[in-house]
Amino acid sequence: MKLKVGILGATGYTGAELLKILVTHAEVSIIWLTSEKFAGKKISDVFPQLRNFCDIVCTSVARLKELEKADVVFSCLPHGTSMHFVARVLDSGARVIDFSADFRFSSKDLYQDLFKTAHKHGGYLKDAVYGLPEMNRERITSARLVANPGCYSTGVILGVLPIVKGNRFKASSIIADAKSGVSGGGRAPTLSHHFSEMNENIVLNMSAAANQKPEMEETIRIFSGDKVNITFIPHTVPINRGILTTVYCEMDNKAAPEEIHALYSEFYNNEPFVRVHSIGEYPGLKDVRHTNYCGIGVGFQGDTLTVITALDNLVKGASGQAVQNMNIMCGFPETLSLARPGLYP
Amino acid sequence: MKLKVGILGATGYTGAELLKILVTHAEVSIIWLTSEKFAGKKISDVFPQLRNFCDIVCTSVARLKELEKADVVFSCLPHGTSMHFVARVLDSGARVIDFSADFRFSSKDLYQDLFKTAHKHGGYLKDAVYGLPEMNRERITSARLVANPGCYSTGVILGVLPIVKGNRFKASSIIADAKSGVSGGGRAPTLSHHFSEMNENIVLNMSAAANQKPEMEETIRIFSGDKVNITFIPHTVPINRGILTTVYCEMDNKAAPEEIHALYSEFYNNEPFVRVHSIGEYPGLKDVRHTNYCGIGVGFQGDTLTVITALDNLVKGASGQAVQNMNIMCGFPETLSLARPGLYP
Amino acid sequence: MKLKVGILGATGYTGAELLKILVTHAEVSIIWLTSEKFAGKKISDVFPQLRNFCDIVCTSVARLKELEKADVVFSCLPHGTSMHFVARVLDSGARVIDFSADFRFSSKDLYQDLFKTAHKHGGYLKDAVYGLPEMNRERITSARLVANPGCYSTGVILGVLPIVKGNRFKASSIIADAKSGVSGGGRAPTLSHHFSEMNENIVLNMSAAANQKPEMEETIRIFSGDKVNITFIPHTVPINRGILTTVYCEMDNKAAPEEIHALYSEFYNNEPFVRVHSIGEYPGLKDVRHTNYCGIGVGFQGDTLTVITALDNLVKGASGQAVQNMNIMCGFPETLSLARPGLYP
Amino acid sequence: MKLKVGILGATGYTGAELLKILVTHAEVSIIWLTSEKFAGKKISDVFPQLRNFCDIVCTSVARLKELEKADVVFSCLPHGTSMHFVARVLDSGARVIDFSADFRFSSKDLYQDLFKTAHKHGGYLKDAVYGLPEMNRERITSARLVANPGCYSTGVILGVLPIVKGNRFKASSIIADAKSGVSGGGRAPTLSHHFSEMNENIVLNMSAAANQKPEMEETIRIFSGDKVNITFIPHTVPINRGILTTVYCEMDNKAAPEEIHALYSEFYNNEPFVRVHSIGEYPGLKDVRHTNYCGIGVGFQGDTLTVITALDNLVKGASGQAVQNMNIMCGFPETLSLARPGLYP
Repeated sequence: MKLKVGILGATGYTGAELLKILVTHAEVSIIWLTSEKFAGKKISDVFPQLRNFCDIVCTSVARLKELEKADVVFSCLPHGTSMHFVARVLDSGARVIDFSADFRFSSKDLYQDLFKTAHKHGGYLKDAVYGLPEMNRERITSARLVANPGCYSTGVILGVLPIVKGNRFKASSIIADAKSGVSGGGRAPTLSHHFSEMNENIVLNMSAAANQKPEMEETIRIFSGDKVNITFIPHTVPINRGILTTVYCEMDNKAAPEEIHALYSEFYNNEPFVRVHSIGEYPGLKDVRHTNYCGIGVGFQGDTLTVITALDNLVKGASGQAVQNMNIMCGFPETLSLARPGLYP
Repeated sequence: MKLKVGILGATGYTGAELLKILVTHAEVSIIWLTSEKFAGKKISDVFPQLRNFCDIVCTSVARLKELEKADVVFSCLPHGTSMHFVARVLDSGARVIDFSADFRFSSKDLYQDLFKTAHKHGGYLKDAVYGLPEMNRERITSARLVANPGCYSTGVILGVLPIVKGNRFKASSIIADAKSGVSGGGRAPTLSHHFSEMNENIVLNMSAAANQKPEMEETIRIFSGDKVNITFIPHTVPINRGILTTVYCEMDNKAAPEEIHALYSEFYNNEPFVRVHSIGEYPGLKDVRHTNYCGIGVGFQGDTLTVITALDNLVKGASGQAVQNMNIMCGFPETLSLARPGLYP
Repeated sequence: MKLKVGILGATGYTGAELLKILVTHAEVSIIWLTSEKFAGKKISDVFPQLRNFCDIVCTSVARLKELEKADVVFSCLPHGTSMHFVARVLDSGARVIDFSADFRFSSKDLYQDLFKTAHKHGGYLKDAVYGLPEMNRERITSARLVANPGCYSTGVILGVLPIVKGNRFKASSIIADAKSGVSGGGRAPTLSHHFSEMNENIVLNMSAAANQKPEMEETIRIFSGDKVNITFIPHTVPINRGILTTVYCEMDNKAAPEEIHALYSEFYNNEPFVRVHSIGEYPGLKDVRHTNYCGIGVGFQGDTLTVITALDNLVKGASGQAVQNMNIMCGFPETLSLARPGLYP
Repeated sequence: MKLKVGILGATGYTGAELLKILVTHAEVSIIWLTSEKFAGKKISDVFPQLRNFCDIVCTSVARLKELEKADVVFSCLPHGTSMHFVARVLDSGARVIDFSADFRFSSKDLYQDLFKTAHKHGGYLKDAVYGLPEMNRERITSARLVANPGCYSTGVILGVLPIVKGNRFKASSIIADAKSGVSGGGRAPTLSHHFSEMNENIVLNMSAAANQKPEMEETIRIFSGDKVNITFIPHTVPINRGILTTVYCEMDNKAAPEEIHALYSEFYNNEPFVRVHSIGEYPGLKDVRHTNYCGIGVGFQGDTLTVITALDNLVKGASGQAVQNMNIMCGFPETLSLARPGLYP
């Protein structure tokens, strides 16, 4: 019998990508989808590429109570809205994977400061596991609530995880400069993401900096045990998908490039979705677009360690990682419906 | 003393391009700009690229009466809205160049059918001259109201003008397939022109077909004296600027390619902004982007005449042509502020 | 036991796409790949996105004799080169699917005229089946040599197949205007496809017109029994993938839009990879990119029938269609490894 | 009488941009152009957008001796080749503006180490002035040889000039992360800049890092008197034009944002082509594309100073700056033919 899956807020870009992965997932049956904007419409009329793969009619979230009980619910609702429906779904007994930032922080106060919103379901924060399998795989296994990481945070954290704990080599300063595709900004039309404005342009994305810098810092602090400060500036460039992040680290001790490379290789040795490139080789976005892989290249310029991470913001940075979390939670093979070659060209 | 120019609706893409041309025009002084959305803001805060070139504060069109009387007014207001302000400005004694379709048709009824809007100022239709200099230069000289042509219409009409009059060679059927950049769809954010939707996509633009097909047909009918039917499908492709139109014509009489080419070369011989390419050579968009030129290539495939026209939708297809019309109306050299090499790459 | 597959010329764009499809195909085992440029290199070093999915080392085609005998061989070699190796592979007993134009024509003379090359293996032309399943499914089943159709030809032919036979409605004139992504021009760097040249540009592709117009015309003549003339101009637009073709047809008899739509719907009713849209609905490229589907929309402008077809030039226009042919030839389910939702956004 | 100008290597992207600026320059007459690839061809056949603006026939550089003596020569030849012809032209008495790196370094040895090429004209190094007007305006006035700066170097140096001298605030560490358009990589077709490879991709540009990092470091050392180390990683993104550089600086003393902003505003107060944005405002590429302006935004993230610079790599980063240098050398108004509004959209 297949796992019954429901999706809250299915008609944005993360919803579309999630559906794309789930409709060919062997263990899953999608039982309902919500959308306020498209309630009453077939999802395949909203996303024609899903025709014949998923033709479920979208429901308003207001009718959540009437819907069949799901085993796992994904929430693609925005920050501030998601928490309310996540709470209701958890209460119904379903396990939840939440794409919003609502359960990513250990502290209600920090969340409220950042998002200028009251957190009405702070009681669930202690149950939430930060859904980065490379860090929290064990805890995800049994979690009832997984807070799926932010797209930028995934790229930065995977880029520094091997060097934030006080083993032999530790970063004393971290600067992360990210370049993201436009889909990370969502599907709602805005002037800055209007085609003629964004095409042939590069702009800063300071609102993402404000939200995800604290997320990275707190997550790394929890992992490493030490407070860490990250300087983080994300940029938007005119492509649809992908984030390439360049991380500049000053190291506590002088390290040979080979030592750092070995550290990374070992750290990610058994990870199905992290690929550490050979020394002197850097991932391009093309290697990972439309896949759940994160490519990592490490090098040095003088004494500065430079780590490049490349991932697809909607897959490893959102919906793919969510399915990876679901696979872990449900005891499915972790790569189910996720291991596929990338697109080219 | 410089010509006093006012601009209605200056903060869309045609307004931006018009300003770019006018701020370096030796004979023109811009005295006011209107914008509802940005009233009270400096135009150079709306368009940073104009900083130090034009720092006028935008005014609401509601305050039109209080503004200094202009010699020439450009209206970049949308169809249906423009007519009201054009009428008021004409009444004040200014001459007007209108970018909308409101005065492009000879018949009020045809306009009303097409735009599903009452035409409240039909009395001015008889004064309006269709502002295609290659067709109506003489009449533009003394016009008080110029209806600036649609961007698609400019490309199609210039492509067939030499072969629609019953001289030696005449087209018996015309099919026009246009490919346009996204800026032709305006500056207001929409889902279909959202970057991630439009990028890597090609779509049909059936609403432009509906409006500009009758415009082309009527304009050619007036020029040639015969009713003409044009099959016209415009497409939007993911570039900012430019329209490349491929016109397929069946000819009344069998014609040698050299004869047709000679016909075109002669027809446009003295035109400063039309360039007929050598036989077998076709313009690409790159040759004309950000210029007021229209490039034309003619060839045959079997007995079918194929004419390719390339122009920039915001220059020859809108603001550049408007300035060309102003230059003609005011006795300035026709190419003033318009003759400049295109961009590359 | 899996089908043993070899690939000639695997390191171009069609090779990359073919590999992407085959590495997740349940019935196939790739046993060798040839590449002159990358002989001795692992295919996953040429295409990093294939890492862990296919790590075979490329061989020079000169060593073909030493390679294990394949059941099916795909040739992605260029026109003029392919025929020689196809002949050798056929002689070894393998069945072949050839991507080049070398076996698409029934007549050696026509081929030689078009490609200005001697056809040294004309004897195989009579064995070759034109690999468009919607037209030749039965004959493909038992073919030893399938000539995989050209990308533009696939879009045009599928767009007119229902109206070229003298049933009730027949086209008396066909004009096809195609807009293609750049990958159709291949992987070898050229000035015209250099990023800065092609970006923000639209150009004509007259060499593709010269080759594929006769291919379409001959294929349709064979299907319908009548000589047909197609006016065909392909354009290249700055996207990676996809062809949107707009076909303009004059009809022998006046037909109601509903009748023509019904004709198309019925004709393609059982086709797994052709989707006829509702009346008045047109496919965009986004609906089909990276899939094997061809979307078709039909409409009228006046008495002119307008048919829009959308497909991915590397999938339904090349490698996907080749795998569809292989599935048919080998008795696998026709959609195996090909039925997946498209990409979005 | 107009200044006689010759151009060496006119048919690359910097040559095209230089011609575009010079053909509308009131004080300049272009007397010859060299191109090996297009010798014997009219420049307007190479670059159709120059038609009627410049129709000079290109000459091989081998015939340099036969050409009329120029007053000023621009060399757009590549590193390693340029020095030979620059030397010959200097010997003829012309003044030279060289786009290559051949005369950018004070030390022959450093150049030879970096470019793995013997410097045969090291004697001229002492005459060469680094052509950044904001730093060396006085010396440029009388220079016979100007080494035009690298595009990346211009963006980084302008971003840090106010804070590298030991005044009140000085940077103790500088990291520069640059994002460049593809035209910076030149006009010669390569696989990595093939449209389908580069589109939707982001890649590192390590060869530019290797060349221009030492250029920045040496130039700043000369200006400030102190050795400086810059960590520099340039990236290529799929746009035609522009470089946006994000500079991360640790400061010697804690500084208030307002103090640093005032420092920048004052430093660039009289510069015609540097625009310091208001506090908290950052330039996008759109503000400066196709202009000679460099936009600068300054901000802080924690104690880290972040400086954003935006410029067009072919204008302020190459040909525009070269004309600015020529204007200074020849006593023309510095902004002649360079002060124009940017493109939008």
